[in-house]
This record gives sequence, structure tokens and C-alpha cells, in this order.
Amino acid sequence: MNQTVEIICVGNELLIGKTLNTNAQWLAKRITNLGLTTRRITVVSDNIHEISDVIKEVIQRGPHFLLTTGGLGPTFDDMTLVGLAKALGCNIEINEEALNMVQEKYLTYAQKKRMNAVELTPHRLKMAKFPIGARPLPNPVGTAPAALIEHGKMTIIALPGVPSEMKSIFNESVTPILKQTAGDVSFFEKSIESRDVMESTMAPLIDTIMQKNPHVYIKSHPKGSEKVPYIEFHISTTAKTASTARRYVNKALIQLTELIQENGGKIKIVKNTR
Amino acid sequence: MNQTVEIICVGNELLIGKTLNTNAQWLAKRITNLGLTTRRITVVSDNIHEISDVIKEVIQRGPHFLLTTGGLGPTFDDMTLVGLAKALGCNIEINEEALNMVQEKYLTYAQKKRMNAVELTPHRLKMAKFPIGARPLPNPVGTAPAALIEHGKMTIIALPGVPSEMKSIFNESVTPILKQTAGDVSFFEKSIESRDVMESTMAPLIDTIMQKNPHVYIKSHPKGSEKVPYIEFHISTTAKTASTARRYVNKALIQLTELIQENGGKIKIVKNTR
Repeated sequence: MNQTVEIICVGNELLIGKTLNTNAQWLAKRITNLGLTTRRITVVSDNIHEISDVIKEVIQRGPHFLLTTGGLGPTFDDMTLVGLAKALGCNIEINEEALNMVQEKYLTYAQKKRMNAVELTPHRLKMAKFPIGARPLPNPVGTAPAALIEHGKMTIIALPGVPSEMKSIFNESVTPILKQTAGDVSFFEKSIESRDVMESTMAPLIDTIMQKNPHVYIKSHPKGSEKVPYIEFHISTTAKTASTARRYVNKALIQLTELIQENGGKIKIVKNTR
Repeated sequence: MNQTVEIICVGNELLIGKTLNTNAQWLAKRITNLGLTTRRITVVSDNIHEISDVIKEVIQRGPHFLLTTGGLGPTFDDMTLVGLAKALGCNIEINEEALNMVQEKYLTYAQKKRMNAVELTPHRLKMAKFPIGARPLPNPVGTAPAALIEHGKMTIIALPGVPSEMKSIFNESVTPILKQTAGDVSFFEKSIESRDVMESTMAPLIDTIMQKNPHVYIKSHPKGSEKVPYIEFHISTTAKTASTARRYVNKALIQLTELIQENGGKIKIVKNTR
């Protein structure tokens, strides 16, 4: 059984359709490649009650990890950490380590700009206010550190919403944690495109292949229409070693290819997708 | 108080990071422009229990509308309608109107290909199996019709996951329903980009502008870093008429522009974003 992850993305910009949620896809892909399973992705607004409610719901479901993105900055509507504290029933307070990180950033900024020190206003101090028990993860790109807190058997990590900051903290601090937890698990996937065979024709055949290959998951995505059928198939698996995973996928791929051709379909491309 | 909407996107491909969730953004943007508010977007896997659970949770929260995407096709893992029926505690059965739509599609296909009739296999019939009480919405692009069902005060609409099908059904059948419900509400938004002023400097000033302009929402998105500050501001509002909305936004925009410049920032671009 894979380790499970939930993702919460906080941000009105996602709910009004202003911003495409590339953060969720980026995280989901990496989580999968590290051998963990993303169970759910939830997008909520910059509202403390919404944030707190959705975190409480995740805690109820109890995945091994909860990653949040967004709401760590200096503005009034950055309230992920307050929402998190509310959900956990604890207070927030200045975290000394986080404060050092924030101060360091403004010191560097001031030196670079040849300014006097940048004043630590309440809005700037806010970025160092953490739920009690949390520890900061350094932000190599921006100012606000990420926060990590253990809650029972679950690890909660609050990442910034700015993609460059989120990615950089994930790569430096989160990847090693997930890797260690997941152990030796390898995800492998291949894709294949077919023409001239309907998805509804392939549907029962996919059932057969999946019965014969219980480790493998086959997903079909119609890209044309039933009138001009053009389907993308993704064949994926998770296994203890990369070579086993590859073997499972390739075996199912050969069977699928044969069935497509037997039904009058043409294979367009076979590609490794990761 | 705006009418509220929740979106559920069903699909393993979204949870493994294979597919970028452009459907959610497309829907959220249109919902916002029609004057309704998207409260939450949830992504779950192609698992009947997950689908049923998340729908039950949405029913508990009670938005006016629930839109789902994905899981309407002929393959084994298309189970949104079964999950929906499970959540509503009703059965699924062949919907005669949906069956006619599906049959019609295969008839046209067969004629075009000069084939004998395309057999209505169980996998094809599946696309006409609807929760009792649901009605089909025609799919101008693909085969599987969408499903609409009223549940108490809530309207649930299950759309396909293929973007071209989802968009076409939304435009033809869903937009008129949402428009009628929302009444005369206009969303308006402008964006502005600034250089050389830190987000943490602007944070208290945004508070001031929002206090003076209670109808207006200002969101800042740092795009550079605190070291090389480059911020995008989105100023938006919803009002009874388009001209009122525009007036609200423009007033706040002028105040924001002045404060950016007073703090040594440069304005880069002002643009209408919708």
C-alpha cells in the first residue's frame, strides 16, 4: 500500500479561473514519481474558515502527508498558517528560526539596494508567525519560509503559492522526506495513441487486459470524437524496482497494441511519458 | 449574496499529474463571469466510493450548483453517474432520452463509415444509464450525454471530461441555466503590474484601499522575488451593472497606482483581463 498524500491549494485566483493550477499538477507528478499516491486535490479560497475546515476534513481522512500551497505571504489574505493553527486547535506565535530566515532576507535586500535596514513591519513579521510546534523550511527564492508540522501520524507541509518558491522548497526540503518515507517504489508509464478505433470498442478489451495484468492501470483518453476516433492510452504501474515496473507496463502495452490492430485501429506513437 | 457553485473533477490522470486541470479553470472563469461564485474545486480519483463520498460532502455544504467533470464514457473507470446515484441513494437505469441520443450517435457513425449498425454493447449502453430522476443534456461533440439532476435546492450537472465535449455542453445547456439563476450580476476585473516595490511594503496599503473600497477585492501576486520585486495586482468586483463594477474597480485602481508610485514603484501595464 503506497503512502498517501492530499494537496490543498489556497487562492481566490484559482476559484475565479484567473490562474491555471499548475502547482497541483507539478506536485502530483512529483509525488507519483516518488512512489506516493495523491488521493485528493482541493482548491479553497483565502478564507480562514474555509482553510481550517478543509484541513480538518483532510485530518479526518488521515493521509500520510498533507501539502498545502499558497497563503504564506505578507498580505491580509495570506492566512494559511492561521487557518492551519485553527484546524489543529493551537496558537500561532513568532517562530525564532523562521524570524531569522525572514530577517536575513531583508538584510540581504537592504545591503543590495544600499538602503538602511528594511523595517520589520507587522506585515513582514507575519511571515514568521507559525503554529506552535511547526518548524520552518528555508525558501531559497522568496521571503516566506514554508512550515512543517507533525500531527499524529500525519506530516503537514505548507508551501508558498508562487511557483518558483514552491518548487524550490519542494526540491530541497520536501523531496528527501517523501523519498525516505516511500522507500523503494518506482512509478512507470507509457503512452500510446491510436486512430480509427472507437473508445467504446476498446472498453471491454481494456477490461480483459487489466484482468490479465492486475498490477497495471490503463486509462483511455478520447482526443477526437467517436466519429473521428483518436485515443490516447496511458499504461502505468508502481513496483518495487524500475525494471519490474517497466516489464509490467511493456507486457500490457504489447497486448493492447495487438487488440487495437485486431479491431482495425492504427498505432500512432508509443512514448515514454516520464 | 451570489449563487454558489462547487466543481468536482474526476480523474486519476489529474491526481498523477499527467493532465493539467484546464477544465477547472475554464469552468471557474465562466462561472465567475456569469456572476456566480465558485466555492471549492475538488479532484478525486476514478473510484466509486471516492466519487460518492465527495458528492455527499458537497451536498452537506449545500452550494446552489454542483458541476462535475469526467467519468461519463464507456470504459470500466467511468463511474461518475454510479457514484452520483450512490451519493443520492437512488438507482441507475437506462434513461430513454439518453439512450436515443447515444443510439443516434452510433447510427450517424455507422452511416458515415458505411458500416452495418454499431452494436449497442453493454459498454455503450452504460453511457445511457442515469440516476433515476436525471435528465440528459445533449453532447454536440462526443457520444456520452451530460446528466442534470435536482437534489433539494441544489442542481447537479455531470459533464464529460474531454474538454471539447465539456465546453460545448456547458455553452449550449449550462450557461442559460446559470445565467437565469444569477440574474443581473456583473464581474469586472483589471490587472496592473508594478516593479521596484516589495509586496510586504504594499501589504498594509492594500488593506487601506480595501477598507475605503469595500466592494473591491485586491489580490497581489509576487512574480519576481522580494529581491527583484515584480508584482501583479488584480482588482476585481461584482456589481448589479457592468458600469458600476467598472467604476468601483477604476476608483480602487487609481488609488493603488498612486500608492505604488509614492513608494518608489513603477507601473508596468494596466490591462483588462476579461
